[in-house]
Amino acid sequence: MINKYQKLIKSLHQKKFRSSENLFLVEGGKSILELFSAENNFNKISIQALFYTEHFAQENQELLPLFQKQVAHSELVTQTILHSVGTLQTNENAIAVAKMPANFPLKVENEMVLALADIRDPGNLGTIIRIADWYGIRKLICSETTTDFYSPKVIAASMGSFLRVKPFYCDLAQYLAMQTDMGIYGAFLKGKNIYEQKFEQRGIIVIGNESNGIPDDLVGYIPNKITIPRFGEAESLNAGIATAIICDNWRRGA
Amino acid sequence: MINKYQKLIKSLHQKKFRSSENLFLVEGGKSILELFSAENNFNKISIQALFYTEHFAQENQELLPLFQKQVAHSELVTQTILHSVGTLQTNENAIAVAKMPANFPLKVENEMVLALADIRDPGNLGTIIRIADWYGIRKLICSETTTDFYSPKVIAASMGSFLRVKPFYCDLAQYLAMQTDMGIYGAFLKGKNIYEQKFEQRGIIVIGNESNGIPDDLVGYIPNKITIPRFGEAESLNAGIATAIICDNWRRGA
Repeated sequence: MINKYQKLIKSLHQKKFRSSENLFLVEGGKSILELFSAENNFNKISIQALFYTEHFAQENQELLPLFQKQVAHSELVTQTILHSVGTLQTNENAIAVAKMPANFPLKVENEMVLALADIRDPGNLGTIIRIADWYGIRKLICSETTTDFYSPKVIAASMGSFLRVKPFYCDLAQYLAMQTDMGIYGAFLKGKNIYEQKFEQRGIIVIGNESNGIPDDLVGYIPNKITIPRFGEAESLNAGIATAIICDNWRRGA
Repeated sequence: MINKYQKLIKSLHQKKFRSSENLFLVEGGKSILELFSAENNFNKISIQALFYTEHFAQENQELLPLFQKQVAHSELVTQTILHSVGTLQTNENAIAVAKMPANFPLKVENEMVLALADIRDPGNLGTIIRIADWYGIRKLICSETTTDFYSPKVIAASMGSFLRVKPFYCDLAQYLAMQTDMGIYGAFLKGKNIYEQKFEQRGIIVIGNESNGIPDDLVGYIPNKITIPRFGEAESLNAGIATAIICDNWRRGA
């Protein structure tokens, strides 16, 4: 791999270089296959470069030439190189350098979206992206304190779902303040039992921080306070689990 | 810390020494406080030794003497020592050496239990223990291939819930074969929509492996095949997320 790309890929482990280059990494065979598939890549994320192993080339003999046409640069590399520049513990397949979409404002159309108020853990964000994709949610409105959607850990944890769910990072209080014609829901300790909540079809589900829940400055913008009933003793559920249960109850009740 | 204990604690990172010593580690302030609290420690796990920092002693001045009465050995140690013998990235509080309960056969009384068919990831198992505790499930019937309940990662990820949920490791096919007078449920690709499933109050929910789902040799023992409806594109949900959604639907429908 030429030195320029080695440097570039390593730099993209860090947010500041992703932001300045407007590029991010996609790693691992499965995510790469989805990235190059028009059918799975709803967000039309375009690709600048592809680095693949002999193993990947063998496994994807028919697809590889089509992939190569889509990128400005493609290159066969050893697995050792892939490991030395990438972030995964094991990756015997490929790394792609993809173009980061602009942080374009996302409106709530006739749909449910998620608002993430300060999700800090990349693994949790990746899991939430995957859950959103499972339940057919296409937009995440993220507070500026929410961890970077395009970090390698988030991309990996989303299991390909980053291709079908879009983020918009903004001042979340301001965003919520402007949404007055739809249902806005958030989980609180003493809210309405989620089993009895009737959800509107158009709206926003606000997901709070892993340790502190929904920040105080957002509470006033969330008229529908809901609670997941507890039947045992655990003090809390993690943010990904809570997101899944709320989405499931919304879809079930719809 | 005396050399004997340094060696012991480090050895308990490994399953073979946990099994031979019948001991396991509990790390971090919050888990330790729950461990020593009769109110939270449903499983009556007893404690052999406690190693705590000056910080922990300051924060728990009234409780510490009561804790010390419960253990054969307690000792003030530096944070550096705690780090060098323990497994957590940050632990400014304490480590306890606790007695591992015997692998006692667990019967299904008038209750719902979970059966774990080959859960390999310690983080997933910890999350499942926490979810079980949230939904008031007290027993996990684990296949012998399921990762060790008493490993430090599982204990940490369970966030204290290991004190209220008990495992029984066994031949799961044999166990299920003997349970004929209750509802046995498991998630499959083409099962009954979980929103329409009526759950019996007494039964077993079988949770499959992260990658391969429920093993073939168990399928015949699971008359109630259920499916979590998907509304979008994600290929699958992780084992912890699926467990939470199934438990929530069971409790909601009850």
